[in-house]
Amino acid sequence: MSRTDIATLGEFGLIERLTKDIQPQNSSTLRGVGDDCAVLHYPDREVLVTTDLLLEGIHFDLTYVPLRHLGYKAVMVNLSDICAMNGTPRQITVSLGLSRKFSVEAVEELYDGMRLACKRCGVDIVGGDTVSSLTGLTISITAIGEARREDIVYRSGAHPTDLICVSGNLGAAYMGLQLLEREKTVLHSTDGVQPDFAGKEYILERQLKPEARLDIVRTLAEAGIRPTAMMDISDGLSSELLHICKQSGCGCRIYEDRIPIDYETAVMAEELDMNVITCALNGGEDYELLFTIPLGDYDKVEALDADIHLIGHVTAPELGTLLVTRDGAEIALRAQGFTAFSEE
Amino acid sequence: MSRTDIATLGEFGLIERLTKDIQPQNSSTLRGVGDDCAVLHYPDREVLVTTDLLLEGIHFDLTYVPLRHLGYKAVMVNLSDICAMNGTPRQITVSLGLSRKFSVEAVEELYDGMRLACKRCGVDIVGGDTVSSLTGLTISITAIGEARREDIVYRSGAHPTDLICVSGNLGAAYMGLQLLEREKTVLHSTDGVQPDFAGKEYILERQLKPEARLDIVRTLAEAGIRPTAMMDISDGLSSELLHICKQSGCGCRIYEDRIPIDYETAVMAEELDMNVITCALNGGEDYELLFTIPLGDYDKVEALDADIHLIGHVTAPELGTLLVTRDGAEIALRAQGFTAFSEE
Repeated sequence: MSRTDIATLGEFGLIERLTKDIQPQNSSTLRGVGDDCAVLHYPDREVLVTTDLLLEGIHFDLTYVPLRHLGYKAVMVNLSDICAMNGTPRQITVSLGLSRKFSVEAVEELYDGMRLACKRCGVDIVGGDTVSSLTGLTISITAIGEARREDIVYRSGAHPTDLICVSGNLGAAYMGLQLLEREKTVLHSTDGVQPDFAGKEYILERQLKPEARLDIVRTLAEAGIRPTAMMDISDGLSSELLHICKQSGCGCRIYEDRIPIDYETAVMAEELDMNVITCALNGGEDYELLFTIPLGDYDKVEALDADIHLIGHVTAPELGTLLVTRDGAEIALRAQGFTAFSEE
Repeated sequence: MSRTDIATLGEFGLIERLTKDIQPQNSSTLRGVGDDCAVLHYPDREVLVTTDLLLEGIHFDLTYVPLRHLGYKAVMVNLSDICAMNGTPRQITVSLGLSRKFSVEAVEELYDGMRLACKRCGVDIVGGDTVSSLTGLTISITAIGEARREDIVYRSGAHPTDLICVSGNLGAAYMGLQLLEREKTVLHSTDGVQPDFAGKEYILERQLKPEARLDIVRTLAEAGIRPTAMMDISDGLSSELLHICKQSGCGCRIYEDRIPIDYETAVMAEELDMNVITCALNGGEDYELLFTIPLGDYDKVEALDADIHLIGHVTAPELGTLLVTRDGAEIALRAQGFTAFSEE
């Protein structure tokens, strides 16, 4: 594979090469890459804005994360935040800090993954910044989306008796990470030993290639269900649920036997001698949606043939924030999720 | 001075501490910090979006840049991009990557500078991300602004016979940088020698505390002058003017004796035995506005008591992109400005 130094193109040359094929898909994108600012048009909708900063060695490890996957994931985690407001993502800006170890071809791979994620979700890349870095890869993405004002869902809207729902299943991304960490040495060994990922494709994909749940946002809208509160699960179910309870001034009860866990997640947890429920509660990076709905919408949700699971209900604040175990014990939820600083 | 480790607060604690006093000023800010997204309201205006990534060791050197100034500048350079579209900045998001060497107090200083810049320009901080870093400080800012569609000025709108204008003066920020680099060793020496900045306050301020030229945007609007093309000068006059000419399909002639240069800039250039015009053409970081106006607006601009200087005019493309020197020689403009990658 050929290797072109970024310096041979320069900043402007690199940006031109990365962005030359970009054709805006959204009517809200009046002007994308190529001027001092992107120009967007949102006359009938509120504008949602979210941003994430991802640093090599903190948020990703390039020894086992392919650049294409990294690009895909970096975009999806931002789009997931737009979904978490019950909105539709429309545009992103992408800023990259690149050290000398990255060739033009490597950056194109990263960008390919970003473009794929954008294409899948109907999102335009409208701008960014590309600079050199002394130390590895920095990715900063800002996502912009839209929602009608009456559709926007905040963290603060949950009420006692609301039902607590999650999409998909939990803990898989964390198990995928554990697997990759375990096989890391093998991945780069020279003695011909190959990492063994057979039967673990799903948890790997959940770690490397998460999806923003636009489908859930659309399904709920079509069914006429408006969540009262919503977040996406990036730090872990416990942490996010505690945010919703705090900001809504409520308590909660969720039930261990209701927490959706995939078979591969359970197998991997057993293999690693970890408690699978702890993984599901605190693992993070699932990018599923956690939301509350009015009790009166119970029948509507049950009638949906959707990937949505009822795991508990909202309570008065004085009742606490509790997990009810299989044997009926009540345990206070704790935010043990991934937080960048306490992990140091 | 007390030193609190960021780890003692955690990510959420730090964000809460930094953002607790923020009160949105703009009616377009429906919801700021505290949920998955900010919510903005732009029914009657187009939305302008721009983003910048600043890395320690590449874009700034903390041995001589105070954190407060850095925060101020990081915000201003983004607001300057909104001005460059003839828009008004309204919101920013701020993402920080922080290594262990930064205390809570240090981050507060940085944030104080950001808040000051925001206050001065009537801008709200509406979100961001705060993560730990292995290697120094990373700052990623996205600015959001507004403009009526008919007021937006692109780089591509210049026509032959248009007049070329710049605000303020050029080369000062670059001279300030040279001065700081020269005094860098002295700044941190222990033998009591102090750096000598007397009579050089202006160029230092231009480097450390640039201002987005909102005042020029307002002045032009009040005078009924709509630039045909505009950019802010971050990389250098030559580089930016070549961008405008390329995107407008035009040539240009600018006159050496028309390029506005401050007295301190000239003195410093002489002291360093540098050509002051080269500094003004290629120095960068002045964050002044470079714009073209129709020839018919000549009288209007001349009548303004504003910090605006006519430096030349737009020509047909086949006439080239030229600097006319004091002695009448014509030299082709070259983009030698700061570009992050070629500098490596």
